[in-house]
Amino acid sequence: MAAPIEFYFDFSSPYGFMAAQRIEALAARHGRAVDWHPMLLGVAFKQTGAMPLTEIPIKGAYAKHDFERTARYHGITGFRMPSRFPIPSQAPGRLVTWLKRDHPAQAAPVAKALYDAYFRADRDISSADVAADVAAEAGLARAEARAAMDDPAVKDAFRTDVESALARGVFGSPFVFADGEPFWGFDRFDQIDRWLESGGF
Amino acid sequence: MAAPIEFYFDFSSPYGFMAAQRIEALAARHGRAVDWHPMLLGVAFKQTGAMPLTEIPIKGAYAKHDFERTARYHGITGFRMPSRFPIPSQAPGRLVTWLKRDHPAQAAPVAKALYDAYFRADRDISSADVAADVAAEAGLARAEARAAMDDPAVKDAFRTDVESALARGVFGSPFVFADGEPFWGFDRFDQIDRWLESGGF
Repeated sequence: MAAPIEFYFDFSSPYGFMAAQRIEALAARHGRAVDWHPMLLGVAFKQTGAMPLTEIPIKGAYAKHDFERTARYHGITGFRMPSRFPIPSQAPGRLVTWLKRDHPAQAAPVAKALYDAYFRADRDISSADVAADVAAEAGLARAEARAAMDDPAVKDAFRTDVESALARGVFGSPFVFADGEPFWGFDRFDQIDRWLESGGF
Repeated sequence: MAAPIEFYFDFSSPYGFMAAQRIEALAARHGRAVDWHPMLLGVAFKQTGAMPLTEIPIKGAYAKHDFERTARYHGITGFRMPSRFPIPSQAPGRLVTWLKRDHPAQAAPVAKALYDAYFRADRDISSADVAADVAAEAGLARAEARAAMDDPAVKDAFRTDVESALARGVFGSPFVFADGEPFWGFDRFDQIDRWLESGGF
């Protein structure tokens, strides 16, 4: 099997949530796996001077409208803006980092479950307790999952992955590398599809 | 015929150039005309705190790469980043504003010719003299076109149109209203197509 698709996302990103609904099918059409990389937009924004989309004058109101419409356009059901938005996403990021190390088969399913909890069920996954609940509902031992988010080695591993993402030029969410080629945004999935189909264009 | 598609663009915007290559065919598929509205991103950026895409750390380098790739993806030939970028676009904006008033059938062809001059032939259309040359090549009287860009009434009309755009929430380029629904970005053309086909979704 060829190299996996590298999928970077922030758990607080609506377009990241939408991308998470489609990335596996996109990769599978081309015989690829997906490597899930939670990242922290806030850290990237310090370098680019960006701010959360919904907080930008004029553009913020449009963005909220576009989230809902884009979800409908792609047939992604159940999306709703969470009561608290944006959120710091260290806890779910660390949880997925730990899963990739200790329970790799669970990393993608739990990442999707975390996104569902936040963007469909309005649960505040920035809380390590809530994130642990979601992991438990997915079949993991709750106490182990909860402890992992406070484990210094897990925290370090997540920090290192976020720094690697920045070093690779990841400045937004979702952000995908397909055979090294960078694609920013759910609205570049058509280009990724053709890139994988044709070997580049 | 139903209401025209309202197409807002800055002459300094690469994605605006690409949108200009496709907007008429998109509108025609649904029996619509296009109302071409040059605007000034710099004025909008003052309200949103944005800056020219290519000047943003990290994101700027990606953007330049994405311009070229997106043009190839859509089969838009001849695109190349101009030597001078971005440019102030008052002169070509005023020229199109004047054409809409005095030679309306020439507004769209000359707008496209101005975009071609800048993004395909690397001519600096921020100069009123160069913009007048482009108008002359399109068959207009050069002296009349050149004078129009200094005409206070034309300047006022353009300023009013830019202010109206801001008041409607236009913060980027391209920006389209289809039956009142706002769409930002060339990458929303698929959504516009379905919106016009289905009457909204």
